[in-house]
Amino acid sequence: MEALKKRILAEGRPVGTDVIKVDSFLNHQIDAEFMYEIGEEFKKRFESKEITKILTIEASGIAIAVCTAKFFGYPPVVFAKKAAPNTMVEGFYSTGAQSFTKDAAAQIVIAKKFISKEDKILIIDDFLAYGEAAFALCNLAEQAKAQIVGVGAVIEKEFQGGGKRLRENGYFVKSLAIIEKIEDGKIVFKE
Amino acid sequence: MEALKKRILAEGRPVGTDVIKVDSFLNHQIDAEFMYEIGEEFKKRFESKEITKILTIEASGIAIAVCTAKFFGYPPVVFAKKAAPNTMVEGFYSTGAQSFTKDAAAQIVIAKKFISKEDKILIIDDFLAYGEAAFALCNLAEQAKAQIVGVGAVIEKEFQGGGKRLRENGYFVKSLAIIEKIEDGKIVFKE
Repeated sequence: MEALKKRILAEGRPVGTDVIKVDSFLNHQIDAEFMYEIGEEFKKRFESKEITKILTIEASGIAIAVCTAKFFGYPPVVFAKKAAPNTMVEGFYSTGAQSFTKDAAAQIVIAKKFISKEDKILIIDDFLAYGEAAFALCNLAEQAKAQIVGVGAVIEKEFQGGGKRLRENGYFVKSLAIIEKIEDGKIVFKE
Repeated sequence: MEALKKRILAEGRPVGTDVIKVDSFLNHQIDAEFMYEIGEEFKKRFESKEITKILTIEASGIAIAVCTAKFFGYPPVVFAKKAAPNTMVEGFYSTGAQSFTKDAAAQIVIAKKFISKEDKILIIDDFLAYGEAAFALCNLAEQAKAQIVGVGAVIEKEFQGGGKRLRENGYFVKSLAIIEKIEDGKIVFKE
């Protein structure tokens, strides 16, 4: 997605060789108008797929998932939570995931009633790095015996291998911008 | 907002006399189409106000804020974070807030670069209960010397007093549905 790559080059800031900060439009400050362009692009990438539910994880995935929903005819969006709040009194599916940016393991949960074996799930997130969040979301959906139709990431950091692992496991993965490496403070996209 | 009240009555489930669960459309599963109706209603409630930025807090406020942005001509949405991730290497404003549903005190942070004294801020959140999150967001915006134009909540639980405290402190508060009390498992709206 050319507009996204331009935006990453203009506003993204590499931190070392592992992290790219895009907090001016994606995951702290959000350009809501641009999120619709992203949603429309996801629709193109998963055009042929029937989707009954969009699954994401708090917090940065929510804006993207909600804006993507519009282009799929508004299926429900469900976001997994990083801890069970005390209002979640009913059954939930649970799995562990390591957060790369927060340097901590988290419990990821989702109420059982919001995913069923009839669901065809599109998983959406902002980043695909080591794949911890994506695998955790797949795990939750699979506990419910739902079908995972695809995994969409706004930015894939290819060098961290999560996308490769997901594809090797048979998931249909589409990333709107794929970063091959961060070298000498420069972002290098995959051609 | 009548459509919201109907939805709360149809799907909201009281837990004791303090909590009302609306996780089927607002804060776990999200009805994105309905979020636009909510955003449009916020536009009506803050019609006369000039807004340069919408401020909310992760995670449940994000979908609402993003959908509200559309009706104000897409000002940037900024969501405060409940802890500073290790990618937040620059200066941030910070304040404490008690989470009602998670029974824990949290540090709420926002990068300094995303709010300035030129900003006219609309604060948006899903619930207004004791007002802890709203006051924390006001505090962050005021640290940046920004002007707080209004505070909008989807659901206000009047009996927990946060709305009253905010109004007494001079904030312009609008809630789309105001719950007077939860009694014998029934939700009573304020007339």
